[in-house]
Amino acid sequence: MTGATEFSFDLLATDGNARRGRIACAHGVIDTPAFMPVGTAGTVKAMTPDGVTATGAQIILGNTYHLMLRPGAERVAALGGLHKFMNWPGPILTDSGGYQVFSLSERRKLTEEGVTFQSHIDGAHIALSPERSVEIQNLLDADITMVLDECTGWPVSEDDARKSMELSMRWAGRCRKAFEERPGYGLFGIVQGSIFPELRQASAETLIDIGFDGYAVGGLAVGEGQERMFDVLDVTVPYLPADKPHYLMGVGRPEDIVGAVARGIDMFDCVMPTRSGRTAQAFVRGGTLNLRNAVHADDPRPLDAACSCPACTGFSRAYLHHLVKAGEMLAGMLLTAHNLRYYQDIMRGLRNAIENGTLAEFRRDFDRELADGPERALDS
Amino acid sequence: MTGATEFSFDLLATDGNARRGRIACAHGVIDTPAFMPVGTAGTVKAMTPDGVTATGAQIILGNTYHLMLRPGAERVAALGGLHKFMNWPGPILTDSGGYQVFSLSERRKLTEEGVTFQSHIDGAHIALSPERSVEIQNLLDADITMVLDECTGWPVSEDDARKSMELSMRWAGRCRKAFEERPGYGLFGIVQGSIFPELRQASAETLIDIGFDGYAVGGLAVGEGQERMFDVLDVTVPYLPADKPHYLMGVGRPEDIVGAVARGIDMFDCVMPTRSGRTAQAFVRGGTLNLRNAVHADDPRPLDAACSCPACTGFSRAYLHHLVKAGEMLAGMLLTAHNLRYYQDIMRGLRNAIENGTLAEFRRDFDRELADGPERALDS
Repeated sequence: MTGATEFSFDLLATDGNARRGRIACAHGVIDTPAFMPVGTAGTVKAMTPDGVTATGAQIILGNTYHLMLRPGAERVAALGGLHKFMNWPGPILTDSGGYQVFSLSERRKLTEEGVTFQSHIDGAHIALSPERSVEIQNLLDADITMVLDECTGWPVSEDDARKSMELSMRWAGRCRKAFEERPGYGLFGIVQGSIFPELRQASAETLIDIGFDGYAVGGLAVGEGQERMFDVLDVTVPYLPADKPHYLMGVGRPEDIVGAVARGIDMFDCVMPTRSGRTAQAFVRGGTLNLRNAVHADDPRPLDAACSCPACTGFSRAYLHHLVKAGEMLAGMLLTAHNLRYYQDIMRGLRNAIENGTLAEFRRDFDRELADGPERALDS
Repeated sequence: MTGATEFSFDLLATDGNARRGRIACAHGVIDTPAFMPVGTAGTVKAMTPDGVTATGAQIILGNTYHLMLRPGAERVAALGGLHKFMNWPGPILTDSGGYQVFSLSERRKLTEEGVTFQSHIDGAHIALSPERSVEIQNLLDADITMVLDECTGWPVSEDDARKSMELSMRWAGRCRKAFEERPGYGLFGIVQGSIFPELRQASAETLIDIGFDGYAVGGLAVGEGQERMFDVLDVTVPYLPADKPHYLMGVGRPEDIVGAVARGIDMFDCVMPTRSGRTAQAFVRGGTLNLRNAVHADDPRPLDAACSCPACTGFSRAYLHHLVKAGEMLAGMLLTAHNLRYYQDIMRGLRNAIENGTLAEFRRDFDRELADGPERALDS
């Protein structure tokens, strides 16, 4: 893994608003558009690091909230950082912990200073401030640190969305000050403002004034639906610097990713391929297959004969169905490997299409398969 | 995988009563003494087939009871047999189903004809006879088929043990008649008789009269303790044909295996390394480590610096402890891989020692490490 001495983003090609780029950071290079598998607690669930690499992933995401509670950021630092701890030598992006504080913890209390809460694991009282979030991510040795922000609820009034966004912007400034510059390490700001174009614009302009190595679009995929999400991207991405990576947090289904790439997004993360892999759902061309369904019990075909993942090259749908019914760990292992490979294949297809100026055709084929559904798409 | 056209056993070397041999069968070659990982329901739990191969295992065991209930022997046969179904191209031994009928099923009824029971999965009424057990193992395409026997309880009177053994011998004859001869496929008889030397001798002689491709010692590891088990081996193995493999069923801990190899046993199977791997127990030189114990939380050392398994070459005890505490699947995956590798390394050590005539030294070192315990053994 070749580390860069300077955090950089090269824009290699465009096709409409879509961008083909390359990020260089301390622990390696990331071709964009990129999908980051989620390694919540220092492991991409059900996968070895070698298995993750084999899917084509170049960067993974770690969750600050989980890691600060267990095993603890200071402990990970003493053990040599998150890369060494989890044996993932490539780039790592960590979130700020804010999203999980608002979705998982108890007895939350939000102030200008930060947020206090009780751990969902052992009930311990914890304080998370912008400065502490950055410190934790530094202890974890994340290549990309995310600013702490407040997660604006959904639905939300414009007034509440403004107040929430403005707090997040003040926190972003404090994160910038707290972030220790190191060669190859980067800090990303997060645009907030819910579905309100003026707030999104104001947020983006504030962040650009502060100055970041990349810009995320936050507060989406919270129940607003794909149409509203795309509308927000249409009015937000134009305000993001073209020479920095654009990251859509927590998204999403393959069709969400394809649409967001067409709107100028470069980076994605989502638990969907990993979580679905542990609940018998396989992402395939044209949609998903539920391997728990008895229709697969005698089916000698692989999930997708065109896929070169370990699940598709070694096993039948009948076998995967059997593993699911028998509650065998190998079901989650194989389906997770397949789903992550499918996501990476989509990203590779998008990168090639942008390079070749054929994104419109790529999207047409993708949409037709989605309309056909998986059984027809896989047979064609 | 090179398959043999004839089922054969070559005795390559001996050291005292210990034997170094090689079995050739339909799906490949097995160096003995051999340990067979248990793949109960068509998967060695928490392992991919490639991972099992990487531990050094050449043969795995499948459980007829589980596979007949789910997914069903006829279904596996229609899908091309168990090797293809589970993507394990090497040799497979299947047990007869008898042991699990007696330990897992409900409403058992034993007659001269066979045994009827209710499935522990869905309550279905099932009949298992010697002929049906052999038929199922044939449908699964097992390289080595085991005869159906009655599992004699423990403790047991000599009179009950005799009656049980005599029933098993009549069933062994019926299995022999039912077994369809195919090039490279073998049928093993099972010596019963509990702890009674005369019964063991009579059982062995009856089986030899019938004629089998290998001879198992059954009815041990049922609570009688290591000393009684070794006593039974001392009075039983001498009656087994020297030119056929000797298989001690369901054994055991590393120290049980080492002692049994010294008494002339060639093959073993046990759920211990796999089950322990899913419950945070690591087998290491000198004993076991419990990775759930907080003593490991900050320990940067691997389980065993001298082990070349994926767990030991990539991860610290601190990380494995974290995975266990967080309930992550990777804990079971890595610890299972380590334990299976440890067992295979023991078998490799035994084979080398027998070849070199140094089994006494091997056992002396092994026993000293056991006396020292894992912390001292691993530091030396």
